[in-house]
Amino acid sequence: MGAALANAFLDQGHPTTVWNRSPGRADSLVARGAHLAGTIAEAVSASPVVVVCVKDYDAVYGVLAPAADALSGRVVVNHSSGTPKQAREAVDWADRHGVEYLDGAIMVPPFAVGKPDSVFLYSGPRAVFDAHRVTLETMGGPRYLGADPGLAVLYNTALLGLMYASMNGFLHAAALVGTAGVGAETFSEIALDWFAPDVVVRYLRAQASEIDKRNFPGTLGTMEMNLTALEHIVHTSAEQGVDAELPALLRAHAQRAIAEGYAGNNYLAMFEVLSKAGPRP
Amino acid sequence: MGAALANAFLDQGHPTTVWNRSPGRADSLVARGAHLAGTIAEAVSASPVVVVCVKDYDAVYGVLAPAADALSGRVVVNHSSGTPKQAREAVDWADRHGVEYLDGAIMVPPFAVGKPDSVFLYSGPRAVFDAHRVTLETMGGPRYLGADPGLAVLYNTALLGLMYASMNGFLHAAALVGTAGVGAETFSEIALDWFAPDVVVRYLRAQASEIDKRNFPGTLGTMEMNLTALEHIVHTSAEQGVDAELPALLRAHAQRAIAEGYAGNNYLAMFEVLSKAGPRP
Ligand SMILES: [Ca+2]
Ligand SMILES: [Ca+2]
Repeated sequence: MGAALANAFLDQGHPTTVWNRSPGRADSLVARGAHLAGTIAEAVSASPVVVVCVKDYDAVYGVLAPAADALSGRVVVNHSSGTPKQAREAVDWADRHGVEYLDGAIMVPPFAVGKPDSVFLYSGPRAVFDAHRVTLETMGGPRYLGADPGLAVLYNTALLGLMYASMNGFLHAAALVGTAGVGAETFSEIALDWFAPDVVVRYLRAQASEIDKRNFPGTLGTMEMNLTALEHIVHTSAEQGVDAELPALLRAHAQRAIAEGYAGNNYLAMFEVLSKAGPRP
Repeated sequence: MGAALANAFLDQGHPTTVWNRSPGRADSLVARGAHLAGTIAEAVSASPVVVVCVKDYDAVYGVLAPAADALSGRVVVNHSSGTPKQAREAVDWADRHGVEYLDGAIMVPPFAVGKPDSVFLYSGPRAVFDAHRVTLETMGGPRYLGADPGLAVLYNTALLGLMYASMNGFLHAAALVGTAGVGAETFSEIALDWFAPDVVVRYLRAQASEIDKRNFPGTLGTMEMNLTALEHIVHTSAEQGVDAELPALLRAHAQRAIAEGYAGNNYLAMFEVLSKAGPRP
């Protein structure tokens, strides 16, 4: 990912200094005009904005610590993976070293870096984001989420969770219809060309403001009715010989929603169940 | 739902005879011009096509059994919920009674019945579907899935499973960002206006034919990398105090995929895990 970020700057003729922990990894960037720094302090000293993308926050500190003095007065934009707690700790670290800090999350694969519709999420001081927006636009389409520095990694984690749940939902559904010899591509003509975007996403989008109001009227179908449907999915999955654990967990959550008093509310009252820690997995 | 179906026929001036197990439930339909049958045999005898929508297949037999003689030579279109096995048993029942049979699934709520883009799924003999397509179009947009009568209920169940997994994925994600005070509507501007349709659905759609080929190259990211991401989602969910059971199950499935030899394949090799029965939930 680091090479993709550097290439995006080089593509737009931006003076770019690179540094990598493994010597030789930056050779192709140097061939394209990047300046190769011999030390991290030299790399940091070359530019007002330092773009970081390493494995995790511990790696960030490991890389930047030797250059702490040189970092003073500069901007660090950190795209490494972590938790909101770690992002807030990074702000404390930056404050101690006189560094302006933006936390970021890259929402696209390396090959899509540098395109204006490739979403990069940022959180931290608005003034820092605004001052360097044009620089950030070199890498993709930056979106500012708010002053809380934990927002970028939190959004990133939340979106990945949505992605995995949706992917497993689709793959389980494809496995179910697969028991009758229906292929995933044939199924996707109904499941993905129509049902997922036009029914599921549209329904959730229309109801999002009601979730914020905690308004879950049973006129949109009750949790009891949805539990019946989930029982049916578990039963059919077992009968067809495919995974039943995913629908069984969804059923357990509906049962918990009913136990917590949401039997007569619509399914989105599930938000209340998922907002709590629940039993230790 | 039965009333919505009858209203769709009445809206288009179709001669419509109705029958309901509970007297009086059809009064508003009669006021709109429906003929009210006194017995199920009378209802069945009034029309060449008998449209059924009751709770389950047992209810179908309970309702139709007294009219078995009158059903001979007619078409039954059954929209009741059930399993593929039950749909195939219904064909046997229909064959024994000289009835032509289509199995159907209604994919929209009652208020959307009668609109041309409201999807109704059908399976069974192609000739029966073709002969009555115009009648079926009165209720919505009929889609023929194939000769196997179990396909309509199987698709229905699969799509509902996809829906619940996606809804819980979104609600879990909304709960996660909610810990930082982000509302579901604000989150949905990124999660639903962009990420779910443009990233998740588009990726699955592009890869559906590869699933059919069982082609899961690790160049699209390996199962090991996805396990690391899922570990991170579980950890962050726990740290933020929201449900961790859903990501923990997804993590367990990724661990099982790796144990089954898919460590170096991309995430969609999860299809192989979900296509098997797995441990009893
Ligand atoms: Ca970050
Ligand atoms: Ca049916």
